Amino acid sequence: MPGSQGLGPAVVALGGGHGLSATLSALRLMSERLTAVVTVADDGGSSGRLRSELGVLPPGDLRMALAALCDDSEWGRTWRDLLQHRFRSSGDLDQHAVGNLLIVALWEQLGDTVTGLDWVGRLLGARGRVLPMAAVPLEIEADVVTTVGAEGGRERVVRGQSSVAVADGRITQIRLLPPDPPACPEAVAAVESADWVILGPGSWYTSVLPHLLVPELAAALHRTPARRCVTMNLSPEEHGETDGMSAAEHLEVLHRHAPDLRIDAVVADPGSVEEVEPLVRAARDLGARLLLRQVRRGDGSARHDPLRLAAAYRDVFDDFLGDVGTAAR
Amino acid sequence: MPGSQGLGPAVVALGGGHGLSATLSALRLMSERLTAVVTVADDGGSSGRLRSELGVLPPGDLRMALAALCDDSEWGRTWRDLLQHRFRSSGDLDQHAVGNLLIVALWEQLGDTVTGLDWVGRLLGARGRVLPMAAVPLEIEADVVTTVGAEGGRERVVRGQSSVAVADGRITQIRLLPPDPPACPEAVAAVESADWVILGPGSWYTSVLPHLLVPELAAALHRTPARRCVTMNLSPEEHGETDGMSAAEHLEVLHRHAPDLRIDAVVADPGSVEEVEPLVRAARDLGARLLLRQVRRGDGSARHDPLRLAAAYRDVFDDFLGDVGTAAR
Repeated sequence: MPGSQGLGPAVVALGGGHGLSATLSALRLMSERLTAVVTVADDGGSSGRLRSELGVLPPGDLRMALAALCDDSEWGRTWRDLLQHRFRSSGDLDQHAVGNLLIVALWEQLGDTVTGLDWVGRLLGARGRVLPMAAVPLEIEADVVTTVGAEGGRERVVRGQSSVAVADGRITQIRLLPPDPPACPEAVAAVESADWVILGPGSWYTSVLPHLLVPELAAALHRTPARRCVTMNLSPEEHGETDGMSAAEHLEVLHRHAPDLRIDAVVADPGSVEEVEPLVRAARDLGARLLLRQVRRGDGSARHDPLRLAAAYRDVFDDFLGDVGTAAR
Repeated sequence: MPGSQGLGPAVVALGGGHGLSATLSALRLMSERLTAVVTVADDGGSSGRLRSELGVLPPGDLRMALAALCDDSEWGRTWRDLLQHRFRSSGDLDQHAVGNLLIVALWEQLGDTVTGLDWVGRLLGARGRVLPMAAVPLEIEADVVTTVGAEGGRERVVRGQSSVAVADGRITQIRLLPPDPPACPEAVAAVESADWVILGPGSWYTSVLPHLLVPELAAALHRTPARRCVTMNLSPEEHGETDGMSAAEHLEVLHRHAPDLRIDAVVADPGSVEEVEPLVRAARDLGARLLLRQVRRGDGSARHDPLRLAAAYRDVFDDFLGDVGTAAR
């Protein structure tokens, strides 16, 4: 039975950026058996520069995930803050995050992506492991339909995560380049042996859906005996790429990109759901129950509260424990 | 009595670069009460670029000293190797040492030089502490006499450590800019409470003598009850700035820059001393006994062997223990 060792359920959280940080900040309160599987398609900022200068995986989303898992001690906080520190200058180092430089240097020194990330995890006393979703750097390419003006209805192709994230118009489809990237084997194994897999919150097209386009990872997500939970975003405005999309439409897009993927639970904040009925239906189409809970902070910001989100996950996990009736699951 | 706690004598090693690393690699075998006091005048390479881009102390010599003190465990060696790792690219990061970036980032984050260095020491499990010799970045300026050609005998001023280190001709005098830099108070305190202070080996004009030109540090070096030991270089060719200078002349230059500084012991490798008599006399002029020991490696390189150098220091320290006749010293 999951959690019987007092370490909590084995949970794999898929995503990138601030969305994944939110999930991990919650999950670390309830489990020590966490694995983050992180997008590696970023091509902007410090990560984009490192990727192009040194030919490495973009480290930024991996760094943020590690920071979210750090031990809550003076040691853990000091190194976390150092990893998140950015240089500011009028010179070469401007905007580089120290953790990005550290991760890339460990990769160069140790010659192995996963070993390097594990060493950063050890430095931070991280509760869990952070892995890339693919073994090679990726590009995201999107079909975007112009929604306003004389060009309305015309479809174009936008390439590069940072361009896709801010593209005007409505995204209809995303693809990865290369189209069949090798997965990270440790990430595949983690998905296969998990109790729960969590998708979202996060930039839907550039942080949440890309995992479903890595063939071996997608296959593992389909065949894993783990339960699957989707965490909805708090505000469409957080993520320019989904401007104007309802919560139900987020699930429909997920369904379109992975028609055979069955979801067990959907967690949403009532304040982020304009109409409940369409969301209930969209969840049901995926096979999922909807859990509405306040999971946002009380300060009016569109940010998840780690304690509230952790409590919501507890509700979800316990709900399904009750379901199965045997200790085997 | 020093060493009575099993921690070894309190030793302060002054210097910079590879010379100081050699001393520290030896001393860490015999004491856990070590303090390195390190030059901060470098203006070349990764350190020079960081100094000019971010307005910080040049971190390179501090990084090398920390690396020399690291714990001999998988953890210590991994982080040491990471700190010493240099990026190689055709871009902005080329030649930057990762440890330099890490140290500078800690300074920015913590707002304090010594606290930042102490955190790197904790990361490495360092045996001892590494401190800067001054609280502000310094420049070295040298008077250099041309020794060959039509310009022979003409004196010129060369500014900047990296330029002084390779200047053609004979250096007659060095100065610091600013001329009266504030010392690092922790370095002054370490010198005052030491059992032994060790100067050299290292680039004589740019790593060994500068400490004597920081007024508060020089005053502490003069008034400390600690014994003082000078470790000679193995080969003049290691250090372009002292090409053709004999070992005795090295001591004479030291005497000229600090006429009142009394030295207790001089350690030299017999293979690096062309004529013993002048060196004995030069040592005696400083008040010092000369200890000749093979302290170089057996591979023919002009590098100190940590074990042999440690054994030589043991001989020196024990020799003076026998001298004093009371347990008070």
